[in-house]
Amino acid sequence: MSANSFGRVFSVTTFGESHGSGLGVIVDGVPPGVLISVADIQRELDRRKPGVSDVSSPRKEPDRVEILSGMFGERTTGTPLALLIRNKDTRSGDYESIRDLYRPGHADYTYDAKFGIRDWRGGGRASGRETAARVAAGAVAKKVLQNEGIEVRGYTLEIAGISVGKVDYGQIEKNPVRSPDKESAREMEEEIKRALKEGDSVGGIVQVTVTGCPPGLGEPVFDKLDALLAHAVMSIGGVKGVEIGGGFESARMRGSLYNDPFYNDGGRIRTSTNNCGGICGGISTGEEIVLRAAVHPTPSISLPQDTVTRDGKKAQIKISGRHDPCIVPRVVPVVEAMVAITMVDCVLLQRRIRD
Amino acid sequence: MSANSFGRVFSVTTFGESHGSGLGVIVDGVPPGVLISVADIQRELDRRKPGVSDVSSPRKEPDRVEILSGMFGERTTGTPLALLIRNKDTRSGDYESIRDLYRPGHADYTYDAKFGIRDWRGGGRASGRETAARVAAGAVAKKVLQNEGIEVRGYTLEIAGISVGKVDYGQIEKNPVRSPDKESAREMEEEIKRALKEGDSVGGIVQVTVTGCPPGLGEPVFDKLDALLAHAVMSIGGVKGVEIGGGFESARMRGSLYNDPFYNDGGRIRTSTNNCGGICGGISTGEEIVLRAAVHPTPSISLPQDTVTRDGKKAQIKISGRHDPCIVPRVVPVVEAMVAITMVDCVLLQRRIRD
Amino acid sequence: MSANSFGRVFSVTTFGESHGSGLGVIVDGVPPGVLISVADIQRELDRRKPGVSDVSSPRKEPDRVEILSGMFGERTTGTPLALLIRNKDTRSGDYESIRDLYRPGHADYTYDAKFGIRDWRGGGRASGRETAARVAAGAVAKKVLQNEGIEVRGYTLEIAGISVGKVDYGQIEKNPVRSPDKESAREMEEEIKRALKEGDSVGGIVQVTVTGCPPGLGEPVFDKLDALLAHAVMSIGGVKGVEIGGGFESARMRGSLYNDPFYNDGGRIRTSTNNCGGICGGISTGEEIVLRAAVHPTPSISLPQDTVTRDGKKAQIKISGRHDPCIVPRVVPVVEAMVAITMVDCVLLQRRIRD
Amino acid sequence: MSANSFGRVFSVTTFGESHGSGLGVIVDGVPPGVLISVADIQRELDRRKPGVSDVSSPRKEPDRVEILSGMFGERTTGTPLALLIRNKDTRSGDYESIRDLYRPGHADYTYDAKFGIRDWRGGGRASGRETAARVAAGAVAKKVLQNEGIEVRGYTLEIAGISVGKVDYGQIEKNPVRSPDKESAREMEEEIKRALKEGDSVGGIVQVTVTGCPPGLGEPVFDKLDALLAHAVMSIGGVKGVEIGGGFESARMRGSLYNDPFYNDGGRIRTSTNNCGGICGGISTGEEIVLRAAVHPTPSISLPQDTVTRDGKKAQIKISGRHDPCIVPRVVPVVEAMVAITMVDCVLLQRRIRD
Repeated sequence: MSANSFGRVFSVTTFGESHGSGLGVIVDGVPPGVLISVADIQRELDRRKPGVSDVSSPRKEPDRVEILSGMFGERTTGTPLALLIRNKDTRSGDYESIRDLYRPGHADYTYDAKFGIRDWRGGGRASGRETAARVAAGAVAKKVLQNEGIEVRGYTLEIAGISVGKVDYGQIEKNPVRSPDKESAREMEEEIKRALKEGDSVGGIVQVTVTGCPPGLGEPVFDKLDALLAHAVMSIGGVKGVEIGGGFESARMRGSLYNDPFYNDGGRIRTSTNNCGGICGGISTGEEIVLRAAVHPTPSISLPQDTVTRDGKKAQIKISGRHDPCIVPRVVPVVEAMVAITMVDCVLLQRRIRD
Repeated sequence: MSANSFGRVFSVTTFGESHGSGLGVIVDGVPPGVLISVADIQRELDRRKPGVSDVSSPRKEPDRVEILSGMFGERTTGTPLALLIRNKDTRSGDYESIRDLYRPGHADYTYDAKFGIRDWRGGGRASGRETAARVAAGAVAKKVLQNEGIEVRGYTLEIAGISVGKVDYGQIEKNPVRSPDKESAREMEEEIKRALKEGDSVGGIVQVTVTGCPPGLGEPVFDKLDALLAHAVMSIGGVKGVEIGGGFESARMRGSLYNDPFYNDGGRIRTSTNNCGGICGGISTGEEIVLRAAVHPTPSISLPQDTVTRDGKKAQIKISGRHDPCIVPRVVPVVEAMVAITMVDCVLLQRRIRD
Repeated sequence: MSANSFGRVFSVTTFGESHGSGLGVIVDGVPPGVLISVADIQRELDRRKPGVSDVSSPRKEPDRVEILSGMFGERTTGTPLALLIRNKDTRSGDYESIRDLYRPGHADYTYDAKFGIRDWRGGGRASGRETAARVAAGAVAKKVLQNEGIEVRGYTLEIAGISVGKVDYGQIEKNPVRSPDKESAREMEEEIKRALKEGDSVGGIVQVTVTGCPPGLGEPVFDKLDALLAHAVMSIGGVKGVEIGGGFESARMRGSLYNDPFYNDGGRIRTSTNNCGGICGGISTGEEIVLRAAVHPTPSISLPQDTVTRDGKKAQIKISGRHDPCIVPRVVPVVEAMVAITMVDCVLLQRRIRD
Repeated sequence: MSANSFGRVFSVTTFGESHGSGLGVIVDGVPPGVLISVADIQRELDRRKPGVSDVSSPRKEPDRVEILSGMFGERTTGTPLALLIRNKDTRSGDYESIRDLYRPGHADYTYDAKFGIRDWRGGGRASGRETAARVAAGAVAKKVLQNEGIEVRGYTLEIAGISVGKVDYGQIEKNPVRSPDKESAREMEEEIKRALKEGDSVGGIVQVTVTGCPPGLGEPVFDKLDALLAHAVMSIGGVKGVEIGGGFESARMRGSLYNDPFYNDGGRIRTSTNNCGGICGGISTGEEIVLRAAVHPTPSISLPQDTVTRDGKKAQIKISGRHDPCIVPRVVPVVEAMVAITMVDCVLLQRRIRD
């Protein structure tokens, strides 16, 4: 019942700190016989890693993954996969000056309050770098889903208040902000650079969809599919809100508009609208699952901020180090990973129900 | 690892259907020696029960609770409390006409897709009536929290797009919509009645706050306090979005505005703003926890809707029976209950960390 | 993660005390569509209930079970079954005299040490009466197993050092000690009566077998089938040892004798001996699973015993009340129940593994 | 809910195969501030590692451990410790000849039946080598227990039917069989060598005690301390039986003899005998906890054995490779590790119960 574990029959357990030896994850419950390669995992890690554009942190981490166990030749055996990513570019010295200061918006104070001890080097376990392990596990999950015909895809829906216009999935990986819309991508990029120049940071919204999902996934009553997804996605650092389908907007609809009418689509029961975002009564309808996550602006900014020292003395802090002025583009693969992990769990769990 | 269970060291397991014998819950992990009475639980159930106003369902359920176990005299013993609520006013006949129809917005189709069998009487396990068990368990949780000086309070923040103006906690239980603002309460009530008259329904937003919470609750990395709360609240039927503190609005802020500066408040470290909603890095800061849940409009409406039969034939449906034109006011105590349950779990779990 | 729960995808959560309102269990993860009747459950409860022979407690408990949820007509729906058994024949007055005394061999002292409070009426939650809920849940498990062609059967292997000779399954329910051997049954009965007359009690060994189990059940490495069975059975009050197959005797064998050779039995791979008791490397081999549990003598005896009061004063105790001079025959259905619950869990969990 | 995880608030999750990259474990729930060094862990691993005596496998594995995370300086931070042990001396070629044969007594067949795929190199995940990760985690557990004044110690009680005479804890690590009795140690060693010479193997019994344990640990009803210990220890490969205190022998005692009388030992309530093995009603009494585990003879023997190939053809097998003629001495630290892990879990869980 580790708090560093997620999932019931497909479960991931992560470890590692920003400036320790490395990060990793044990992925248990992978069905036997799944073809997985280091390249499959590396591809996803490369989407998350820093230092690849001028709107992300300049820290240079190759994030090379090693598969330590669970494979026999190219296939999984049903035993746990352990994935290890060594840290390479740690400059703990950058953090010496703030070891006794609580950075606003960071977990420095709350970790101290919880544990009475804190690894101040790069945020330790609370660093966003922790999500590399999630992405590695998510890559495994995506391979399992692929065998089921299920696909998880994400993109940036909004940055600094700038929304996506038209959605072209082919654009997403072609711009540094992961916008599916070339136009808005440019505006978002500019806005991020402006914030950076002003010593500030911005936030945004990530959208992830799941296609090919059969009806019937998710469990009443506490493990509803949307509840599990909310847990999964809200556990990502920086996420302050999660919504499914119509989400907060559905609170302003009338029932006659919100309800998704059923129809028979050549023998398959479908709904003609999808306000419920593919999940009704906590169980998948078979339509596209639509989820959005609100990401707050990066807390590390170079503008001066009021704070206190560990012993409560008033202080000011200006954060140097290497940081992302907007974390949203790098959060996209992390949300995808958490959604994929959740979906595999539900797929495998549903298999227990048969005539 | 029951999907009808929630919580780690304080855990609740529920059962029951809308038109079966009754509903109930086993509450395990209650600390020994807590004073609890039937009245404590009944008070909360009375806040959720139907038939108390003309904006709620006319079904007459007294929702009388019986404590079956876990008490010795007036105190808990540390063994599981079992709470039972018998159903009294079931009219399954109301549902005969729709037993082969899938009601839009309801879990009829998805339960069938999942289980291949469905209790069509009043929605069975998928009925909102299931939440009575949550409220009963939440009442126990509130008693435990009371001993810790922690208070969980909720209200209606918005109904049918009508927002609360000023917040007066004294008003909440004085109006049928649980608005903390007399003025907006009247408007909300009118809007609900208008929708009902038009055979329609409306949704809204519930806000819950937790005061008196110490810093340090919640667990990195997957069991962050906000992740657990999101899981807990998103598992309530009808909830399509959950946000903490600034929530989706924080995605549009700059870091310099969003970050909550620390200051020393007479020896206690506090933040001068609370955009993070009392949770930073997944761990409580000691400030007020603020959570909002979006509730979609009640799916049961009397306007005709397009649907299909179980065997896929096109059909129209008009839902009679007894329903709430707006479930939001009755969801308030349910969200409170789920938040309270989550908080107790985190409080007890934190006790394991000591020198 | 309730300590009053057992199982992963098929999980039972129990409640209730010896002299409270009653006992019960929520059984979750029951596959949908299983035919279950009150009679199916009652039959198993009747095998465990007291007052049916002169070697068991004279307490008269009909142990009538009510199914509160999870059924639609005669079939399960996939939602949790709640089963309730009301206490009828409670004479808490019997216990007044010992409310401040710790009974040797009972959990009186350890519960006090754990919880700081104790329900002294009939042992409260620590009473053997708690196992009624297990048997009720086990009856549900047996129905699920029946659909899989798996059968769980138990008997008394030894009482007061008297071992069973030949095994005739037809004899088991025909004698009050549940011996499969008429001869030894008579001796055992006499020995129990002798102990009772002398104010004393005796123990014994229960054996349970599982037939029809496919190979492949159980999970490496911590949830090996034998590990789960040991957990399940050792959690029954009074059990002090569990062994599988050759058990402790296998520690004295040589490998050449112990190892079970494989052979091809008409296309099915089998072993010609079964020293491993149907479980090899923690996973079922497809042969009969054989488990034995050692049950210590009933702690309630009328002979005087040395003890202390709650405040540590030296005292003597003579236990009156209504007790079993030998609990072994009534433990047989309890061990069967725990084995059946474990097997269903493993069967359902194995379904997640497919091509 | 990984089957490769064990524990509730102190939980370990392991990975790795005999002939893969290595083995490892994530230890979560370690309290913050505990002093732990690589040497602390290495010391325990050295007790388990092969190649150190002529009664153990000649495979040369240094079993060097690396701590990948969870430490800040010399102290734990409360975040997960990941421990990695690289495999060094793998000779998978040794296994080529048996890749299509099922070795009797090994998990070859059952893994194939379960997963449909099998890593035949050295037994893969089913190898006893898996226990290195347990021992590493157990070393962490022992450090936590040390801070609580709790000590876990084990020894060989019996090998090949030869029992220990007198118990001298100072002798245990001085002889290759881990007997606390010099005399029997010599006999055991001779008997092992005789079996080896004859191409055979032997088994035995391990005893582990826990001293300094406070009363009150363990949880009613399914997570009784003895049930958790039985689960923990029975999950070790080769263990076929577990007993507590009087164990199977208690089944032959009368209640008047078995019951442990209470007395007041200078203000502390104690029992004058300890037939219950320090656990009564599933909860620790404060007396020494006594547990025994039966270990079957090593399945790898060089004598010819009957078996079948993967496709069911009759065959004979003679196992070469490098094996232990008696695994018992190396199982001692493994049982200690599992007991220590279980005890920490119970200690931390008990902290949640306060006034």
